Amino acid sequence: MEIGRSVRRVDAPDKVSGKARYTEDLVPAGCLVAKVKHATIAHGYVVSMDTTEAEKVPGVVKIVTCFDVPKHGFPTAGHPWSVDKSHQDIADRNLLNQHVRIYNDDIAAVIAENTVAAEKAINLIKVEYKELPFYLTPQEALAEGAVPIHPERQDNNLIGSLCLKTDMAGTGYETIEEVFEDEKWHQYTGHYQTAQVQHCHIENPDCFAYMEHDRITVVSSTQLPHITRRVVGQALGIPWGNVRIIKPYIGGGFGNKQDVLYEPLCAFLTTQVGGRPVRLITTREETFQNTRSRHAITLDVNAAYDETGRLQARKLIAVANNGGYASHGNAICANCVTGFRQIYPDNIANATEAYTAYTNRSTQGAMRAYGIPQCAWAVEGMMDDIALELGMDPIDVRLRNISREGYQDPFNGIQVHTTALAECIKKGAEWIEWDKKREEYKNQTGNIRHGVGMAIFSYKAGVYPIALETESARMIMNQDGTAQLQVGAVEIGQGADTAFCQMAAEAVGMKTEDIHIVSFQDTDVVPYGSGAYASRQTYTTGGAIRKVGKLFRERILEYAHELLPNNVELDIIDGQIVDTRLGKSVLSMADLAETAFYSLEHSVHIMAETTHQTKTNTLCFGCTFVDIDVDMALGTVQVNRICNVHDAGKIINPQMAEAQVHGGMSMCLGAALSEEMVFDEKTGRLLNGNLLDYKLPTSMDSPEFKCMFIETNDPTGPFGNKSLGEPPTITAAPAIRNAILNATGVKFFDLPLSPQRLVERFLEEGLI
Amino acid sequence: MEIGRSVRRVDAPDKVSGKARYTEDLVPAGCLVAKVKHATIAHGYVVSMDTTEAEKVPGVVKIVTCFDVPKHGFPTAGHPWSVDKSHQDIADRNLLNQHVRIYNDDIAAVIAENTVAAEKAINLIKVEYKELPFYLTPQEALAEGAVPIHPERQDNNLIGSLCLKTDMAGTGYETIEEVFEDEKWHQYTGHYQTAQVQHCHIENPDCFAYMEHDRITVVSSTQLPHITRRVVGQALGIPWGNVRIIKPYIGGGFGNKQDVLYEPLCAFLTTQVGGRPVRLITTREETFQNTRSRHAITLDVNAAYDETGRLQARKLIAVANNGGYASHGNAICANCVTGFRQIYPDNIANATEAYTAYTNRSTQGAMRAYGIPQCAWAVEGMMDDIALELGMDPIDVRLRNISREGYQDPFNGIQVHTTALAECIKKGAEWIEWDKKREEYKNQTGNIRHGVGMAIFSYKAGVYPIALETESARMIMNQDGTAQLQVGAVEIGQGADTAFCQMAAEAVGMKTEDIHIVSFQDTDVVPYGSGAYASRQTYTTGGAIRKVGKLFRERILEYAHELLPNNVELDIIDGQIVDTRLGKSVLSMADLAETAFYSLEHSVHIMAETTHQTKTNTLCFGCTFVDIDVDMALGTVQVNRICNVHDAGKIINPQMAEAQVHGGMSMCLGAALSEEMVFDEKTGRLLNGNLLDYKLPTSMDSPEFKCMFIETNDPTGPFGNKSLGEPPTITAAPAIRNAILNATGVKFFDLPLSPQRLVERFLEEGLI
Repeated sequence: MEIGRSVRRVDAPDKVSGKARYTEDLVPAGCLVAKVKHATIAHGYVVSMDTTEAEKVPGVVKIVTCFDVPKHGFPTAGHPWSVDKSHQDIADRNLLNQHVRIYNDDIAAVIAENTVAAEKAINLIKVEYKELPFYLTPQEALAEGAVPIHPERQDNNLIGSLCLKTDMAGTGYETIEEVFEDEKWHQYTGHYQTAQVQHCHIENPDCFAYMEHDRITVVSSTQLPHITRRVVGQALGIPWGNVRIIKPYIGGGFGNKQDVLYEPLCAFLTTQVGGRPVRLITTREETFQNTRSRHAITLDVNAAYDETGRLQARKLIAVANNGGYASHGNAICANCVTGFRQIYPDNIANATEAYTAYTNRSTQGAMRAYGIPQCAWAVEGMMDDIALELGMDPIDVRLRNISREGYQDPFNGIQVHTTALAECIKKGAEWIEWDKKREEYKNQTGNIRHGVGMAIFSYKAGVYPIALETESARMIMNQDGTAQLQVGAVEIGQGADTAFCQMAAEAVGMKTEDIHIVSFQDTDVVPYGSGAYASRQTYTTGGAIRKVGKLFRERILEYAHELLPNNVELDIIDGQIVDTRLGKSVLSMADLAETAFYSLEHSVHIMAETTHQTKTNTLCFGCTFVDIDVDMALGTVQVNRICNVHDAGKIINPQMAEAQVHGGMSMCLGAALSEEMVFDEKTGRLLNGNLLDYKLPTSMDSPEFKCMFIETNDPTGPFGNKSLGEPPTITAAPAIRNAILNATGVKFFDLPLSPQRLVERFLEEGLI
Repeated sequence: MEIGRSVRRVDAPDKVSGKARYTEDLVPAGCLVAKVKHATIAHGYVVSMDTTEAEKVPGVVKIVTCFDVPKHGFPTAGHPWSVDKSHQDIADRNLLNQHVRIYNDDIAAVIAENTVAAEKAINLIKVEYKELPFYLTPQEALAEGAVPIHPERQDNNLIGSLCLKTDMAGTGYETIEEVFEDEKWHQYTGHYQTAQVQHCHIENPDCFAYMEHDRITVVSSTQLPHITRRVVGQALGIPWGNVRIIKPYIGGGFGNKQDVLYEPLCAFLTTQVGGRPVRLITTREETFQNTRSRHAITLDVNAAYDETGRLQARKLIAVANNGGYASHGNAICANCVTGFRQIYPDNIANATEAYTAYTNRSTQGAMRAYGIPQCAWAVEGMMDDIALELGMDPIDVRLRNISREGYQDPFNGIQVHTTALAECIKKGAEWIEWDKKREEYKNQTGNIRHGVGMAIFSYKAGVYPIALETESARMIMNQDGTAQLQVGAVEIGQGADTAFCQMAAEAVGMKTEDIHIVSFQDTDVVPYGSGAYASRQTYTTGGAIRKVGKLFRERILEYAHELLPNNVELDIIDGQIVDTRLGKSVLSMADLAETAFYSLEHSVHIMAETTHQTKTNTLCFGCTFVDIDVDMALGTVQVNRICNVHDAGKIINPQMAEAQVHGGMSMCLGAALSEEMVFDEKTGRLLNGNLLDYKLPTSMDSPEFKCMFIETNDPTGPFGNKSLGEPPTITAAPAIRNAILNATGVKFFDLPLSPQRLVERFLEEGLI
């Protein structure tokens, strides 16, 4: 069994020794440098631009302004292409913008022999603007009379909306409002707000582009080689087959690189210098302001529940701040409300409304867990507030309401095929000593107060049935009997390559060590893959690998049968061709490979490639438990102990799964306690777009992360597995919020739980 | 029809604009430099080496001597691996040699931060030798009592031999000697000698190697990515799957890069510096001395013929000088005598003997046409001498003896499936005005004398049945309906990529412009291919492309049938899905591709890959005609007019075919008139191993090359085609030899036909 083993990460030796090659390591000698000129207004128009002085800077090769670029509107979301025009992403982008929609918007680019010349020239470009009012919140942008941020669209700054209500038939009520109005139920109302936060991957977005004849190659730190190929084609108005994307190792993405970022501009720039290589790497400041971040969402929740804590009706109105460009459109806010529906589904009625608005903040897009952390922030706060109201244990309230096996979402049909959520909660509670601590932490006074808290989540695998789930994979026999594995799906630091090798080995009957993964994707030769997002890789790509592995195995056995007596019954076990009746190896893979390659009678280079389309989905589950200290006077929270317990189906590689969970917990802790992008009300400018002013926790700020699994065997997962990439980052924030409630009796509704906010609330409550 | 069109070379725009990327263009920043320390004796042993001073040079990272390398003997010939041990190439190489077998042999290597440091260190390494006698000719090396150059072998310096005699049954003679002794036949005896010449490709062998984890990547200017992978594995004693070879564009090879040259050493060196990239590029001098060259072969020919010029019996004893290492072993000399047998085959009897000997010259290996130019030098000289003896026209003598359709070689079974040789001769004779010139050029005196001459050849396609012929190919649909074509076979400047695109387009029904060839081979992902040699690419790889194209076409049509009404009959014409009954396009490839990729119902990434094994061979034919002036006093030959006429079956791309012929003619002219590697009798050192002293003709020295084709449609060629890569370089030398005979009446037997040689012979003959 190769699945379930803690095989060493295949990329570990190169990553720790510095040999692993990232985009930076592949930049060719003599590569030109591009720098982008950014706007210094948050909303308005570039009236004119004077590049005279900039062009005189020695080393400047070419300056391109927003007046020079082609006007092929293009989308940037990392969504698979839809042949249905109404489902295509909003194509509101241009390579450079005369209409400035965010502070720091891209209005010109300089190509130079070196960075110094490029930056000098950028500073010498003179720009004349016409300013317009700008909006930092959806509420302002959606207000009557607001200036449209995309006047070419007819949407009055509303990018999209999705309003869904469950069927009332047979409930005894006509409308959900009637349920809320029914006096026999308790009522809950909460107004929650999340903060705009950034992914803060180590490697800033980086790419370089060059031409060979009439084809453009872009080497890029992306999660989406094939989608980037398509978007570059759209942006430049050239055939998609004329674009080649190469994706080396990347230093993190977390969804930011699930948008096509500067690849189209970089591709365009090489066409402006005769195909010479041009590199465009963003600074950390540009990464904050000009790439993507997590949506600030306003969440208004209502619940009706009985005295036992059983939910009867729920309602969520979520309004997402999307910033200046559509990126993923309303999809993230829609996912947020879908998550709300699915987590405690068994109500008389529920209703969800998702709205996403353009504002003049920097653009918000995909970030790990895609709207679900925002959902959990509200819904898990609500559950603890209800428990408090009823004087019940928060765990008991949850256990009364969690989804069970067999639940099917009425709108998208997603089913709970397996769930160990109750066991996860039990295990987490035991580890944190829930009952004991709850008892101990009653009625505290003094400056340091202790609390325990918890929160739960569910999460789907991939994007079916919202969008297309398709992946291809290929295996090639090497001359020594080892095999190459090539997939369109990408390693982005999450360990996908290792999991893929284990899966292929399992499917064929080989050893993981004998599978060499082709880590870099090159769209010219790699099988098609949509990219790394939606925790879909072990689920959808896993399906493709399982399928190609079976095919590869069949072809090996077919050739083995040519070499062996007629009557043998063969299997492949640990890389050996085994006669199952003798129970022993009759041919090594190495000998088979040598003969297959070099036989004068019948030479076959054993290969297999196939497409796998996933038409299922499934929910994974889990929870976070925390034990904290609150310093009342300083408003600081110290996390003493924290654990996540996951039901992610069958675990492919326990050690790597644990590492994945650690990273997610850390990310969520930052969002819980300190991270927030702050915009200047007067100018619309991001005030803390750098790693000094933006408070990302470091390893010194982090507690020890405990991670546990309850394994289920999901019938729809290719190896019994469910999603694990994003879920670890969902529940730390509400668990801490609930632990603060436990410690202090104070409810928080806004993120982050910063000292400033805590002190303000404690003062309000008269606690300090 | 895509076959037969003069499509523009797909690599032309990048090659003329400097965008095409060669090994040099891919060297990573910070790459270390390796330089090889060469021996200053021609034969002997390194007794000791002192690297103390060398190691002190700033920038030196590591010095490796012949005492430090592993002792896995390995072969270097670009032959497919044989599973039969007795057919494997001679594994007489080591990475560095304590036993020095050629002047300039590799005895140590320095790895440094830069070339200056490396060269400085090389010069500071002190070496103590024990010298042995050295031999520059096979005759010396094979003489009784000669010191063995490879004492570990039991062969007394004879690398190999092949002696074949045709069956005498039914001939009326017992032995071939009886035929020669029969007084009714005329007798011919000739002692011919060819010179050792070098390929002189523009780009010297160049490679760099680095490690990722425990795998080694070598980027190399090679004709043989997959064979190089295997040989590096053998040389380092590591699994072949742990080696990855990447082959970028290369600046010529001509067979020199059909040997594995410095790739194994370079691969070993990166292991000595923790996997850091190390580059090893040879200088021009090293290319001459340490890579490969064309064999100097001594050819003793005998013929018995009747008064009509009909050959009755022929015999050839060929002895090849192989230099210090086996490289291709006896294969080239064996091919030389096979060519002798096949060109005028219909004799009562013929006998051939091929011997290849180690000497202490620099190693001789594959070079364009692999022994056949040497064969043609002797046999085509013989034919003119016989014609002169009989007072006949040399064309008439040849036409009486050439092979006809249906001829089958008694030893290897190779057949003449098609031949237009007689028509080629006719066309060439007309173009050169043969009869008129022969009449005009009779009985000349004076210093400038005119002559016409001609020579013919036959040449096989690929190596079947001598060795394995297997190739794989892959096609991948792009999202815009264009396609990628990926083959293991390599572009080495000959235009293979363009021919492959045309073939794929033809097989599928697409336009050549819509096929994007993946020019670089990367053994991790590319389908298996043996490499560029033996004029096999259009023949064997063509077969693989035809097969994969048909498969790709089937899959396209299968998907088209899903989208279209049941009763349509579909074909692919010019990239359109055509309803053959309506005679019009019903679906574009672009629309089909978009749906196939992105269909929510049935997503398929259309791909095809397959192996093709060739189990046929066929002979192509052709001739050279020349019209020259000889300056008797200066001994110079001026080529006034020259043409080649080829029967290469169906011509894939006429313009490129012509270019291929031009290059071959030029190469043969150099060998005919000026090229020769000269070794110092006293030291064994090569005296003219550089492009100043080695007289390679330039474009200024070249006449206009005329090229004509007579097309046949070979039933075994995938598109009716036969070989064309090597044949153009066979017959210019004997044609000029025969023209000199026509002009002066003087017979030459030794190459090159240099002024020195001509003047000496003219003096001997009393002509000057």
